[in-house]
Amino acid sequence: MLITPRTLSGFKDCLPQEAMAKKNLLQKVSEVFLKFGFVPIETPHLEYAEVLVKQGSDEIQKELYRFKDKGDRDVALRFDLTVPLARFIAQYQNQLQLPFKRFAIGNVFRGERAQKGRYREFTQCDFDFIGSDSLSCDAEILQVIYASLVNLDIDEFSIRINHRKILNGICKHFGITQPQDVNATLRIIDKLDKIGEEGVLAELDSELGIKEQQAKEILQYVSIKQNGSSEEFFASIAHLKQWNDELKEGIEDIERLYEILKPLQMDKDCYRVHFCIARGLGYYTGIVYETILTQIPSIGSVCSGGRYDNLTTTFSKQKMSGVGASIGVDRLLAAMKELKLLEGKSTSARALLVCMSEEYMAYAHTLAESFRRSDIAIEIYPDIVKLKKPFSYANTLGHEFVLVIGESEFKAKSITLKNMTSGMQLEDISFLKTLEILKQN
Amino acid sequence: MLITPRTLSGFKDCLPQEAMAKKNLLQKVSEVFLKFGFVPIETPHLEYAEVLVKQGSDEIQKELYRFKDKGDRDVALRFDLTVPLARFIAQYQNQLQLPFKRFAIGNVFRGERAQKGRYREFTQCDFDFIGSDSLSCDAEILQVIYASLVNLDIDEFSIRINHRKILNGICKHFGITQPQDVNATLRIIDKLDKIGEEGVLAELDSELGIKEQQAKEILQYVSIKQNGSSEEFFASIAHLKQWNDELKEGIEDIERLYEILKPLQMDKDCYRVHFCIARGLGYYTGIVYETILTQIPSIGSVCSGGRYDNLTTTFSKQKMSGVGASIGVDRLLAAMKELKLLEGKSTSARALLVCMSEEYMAYAHTLAESFRRSDIAIEIYPDIVKLKKPFSYANTLGHEFVLVIGESEFKAKSITLKNMTSGMQLEDISFLKTLEILKQN
Repeated sequence: MLITPRTLSGFKDCLPQEAMAKKNLLQKVSEVFLKFGFVPIETPHLEYAEVLVKQGSDEIQKELYRFKDKGDRDVALRFDLTVPLARFIAQYQNQLQLPFKRFAIGNVFRGERAQKGRYREFTQCDFDFIGSDSLSCDAEILQVIYASLVNLDIDEFSIRINHRKILNGICKHFGITQPQDVNATLRIIDKLDKIGEEGVLAELDSELGIKEQQAKEILQYVSIKQNGSSEEFFASIAHLKQWNDELKEGIEDIERLYEILKPLQMDKDCYRVHFCIARGLGYYTGIVYETILTQIPSIGSVCSGGRYDNLTTTFSKQKMSGVGASIGVDRLLAAMKELKLLEGKSTSARALLVCMSEEYMAYAHTLAESFRRSDIAIEIYPDIVKLKKPFSYANTLGHEFVLVIGESEFKAKSITLKNMTSGMQLEDISFLKTLEILKQN
Repeated sequence: MLITPRTLSGFKDCLPQEAMAKKNLLQKVSEVFLKFGFVPIETPHLEYAEVLVKQGSDEIQKELYRFKDKGDRDVALRFDLTVPLARFIAQYQNQLQLPFKRFAIGNVFRGERAQKGRYREFTQCDFDFIGSDSLSCDAEILQVIYASLVNLDIDEFSIRINHRKILNGICKHFGITQPQDVNATLRIIDKLDKIGEEGVLAELDSELGIKEQQAKEILQYVSIKQNGSSEEFFASIAHLKQWNDELKEGIEDIERLYEILKPLQMDKDCYRVHFCIARGLGYYTGIVYETILTQIPSIGSVCSGGRYDNLTTTFSKQKMSGVGASIGVDRLLAAMKELKLLEGKSTSARALLVCMSEEYMAYAHTLAESFRRSDIAIEIYPDIVKLKKPFSYANTLGHEFVLVIGESEFKAKSITLKNMTSGMQLEDISFLKTLEILKQN
């Protein structure tokens, strides 16, 4: 009986076009990580469930792929790369040098209800700077976000910066001081885009008893953002530093961050303070980031992160502070597709080499070898068939050129070249002439 | 209560040094794949168990990580990349262009008994050429193996070539014709290194009733290998073609393979015919390969593969022929470590930049940015501490240079450079002079 070839609901294959784009994206961001001294680590896809579960929210526990292995161990597939990082740091703390800068690229698993564009297995790409409180780290995380996007040829983006202490300070000023109330307030405010101002005001009242006028004031402060230069902006919010220590510390951290960033050759319009950015509520404790592509803001943040103090609390009494961010690989790929920054090809080869007789195959292989030695990716069509088939193959996959070896080419040790885009055809040209064309275009 | 940070038995973490070496290895072989027109695909780590199980051997079934997911589906973690490839080809046969050249790099899971050097999660790296019978494909697989090793700076290796029809033909000549008997014979002969000639002769007798004299003759033919030039070798075995069609076809395929390979700029000592190579017994049907590193043959084959006819039989009545090979990532890494081809560093950065006061941090970041723009990977030590600590950090991780910014350097906009290997120190030198040194060494 034949088995129906199919993937599980919520899981998907990457066909070559997508897989190449993804590989290329991850390669380009890895280059940036390495240039800043972030090094890769790998952790297993499968862990003891207790290692993963304690730190995850209830939501995560429901979504966990958890089972008993053959040794009756309670195991689970990782649902993110942060909990394994915490486990890793705690486990190797005597071997690792602090500060520890790592990046990790890997798949994670969440059995959430299947919905469009959301998958149960997806790729995360995290970079973190562990074990230092210095704002130099926060500045570097922002530089890595910036450099990663630039390396992907994305230039219209806005990194939105905020500080948890600023949000805490605003809440405190309005009498909201209990952490759970602060979190509830920010969670409700975060729905502004979804449920509108009226909805937010209603929820703040019903859930937290914050009355309309006070709620409106909070909303007004939380919507403060930097529009012009940083000097003007910091001057305009200087008075907030007097409200309380949280606001003072939060604003001064961002001011120091800007002192590091300002002399750099980064476009100053690409990073801006937005008091509305909350990110991961309970988790982050310092500066936080979100990155919006200004041409398609609706896609949401493509790179988010921030500073935290509580990484290893599940495993160790020692406090471990860090700052990091995560690139939304799938979202970024979707965005790049929409921005036409991806090549729509299903081949890595620039040219397809076609042989019209078995007799010329050895010659074709020597030609292909010479092209590859000159750094041209080239593919040989392996079968001896009518030309229609390899041409259709090249057309579908996206080869830019087809090189044909027939009898006359074989005898003259030449090549006939066809440009698949323009249709231009050059007959019986030399290897060097062909190489020149393949290199040029 | 704190959770003990630990990995599951048989699972392991890759620390930066190993993870960097692995990343580099996979990057270099991927470059080669892409240059030959092999494109990446990705399939999920988790599949319907029925998709994975039918094609796997009993051994594999016992080792499968299999469980019920929350939707009560019978699911399992993949144990190789070949079965998912078969499922992929069958599932997308109407979308894919044949021949289909794909590579896949990913982790697979086998719950085998934990033993030294064997892990329950490990990385596979496969490349296959599906849907063509042409020997051009077989020749290309061999070229990819060759080019991959050369790209990893490995030059002393031997790709051993054989053909299943040659082994079948030798067996046939000695009256062994049933496939299961042929397989049993080859499996026993494969133990030659382990149990010696006497052991093999004893087992051939007890299991298959092959008497000593005949067994010795079989052994003699199976140990034929190419020592000198291919011309001499093929002349010396020409008479075997008359024994039967299997031998004739097998030898002629290899002769044609050599016709394609001979004109190429590949070292002819690096590929040789060995009649003893069997590989995957039941699975392969044509030319097979094994790759031995001649300086450390004991490590076994680092890249193996061959031609098969039965890829998609679980999913489709359509026969699908292919030829491919798999790089033993862990084995190759271990070999490269032994051959001292790996850098023993735990950092990607060439230099560590150290600031002696918070005040100079912005200057340090502008310097680091300039180095990175000149393609030098550089890391900033984020904390302001006594110099001993960052120097020890650089020493342990393997930075080649430490650049120090103290008061005089900050004022003069200069740098003090220390070469961590030679101990050479240059004080108050310019950015350009520093760049020159970092580029040179």
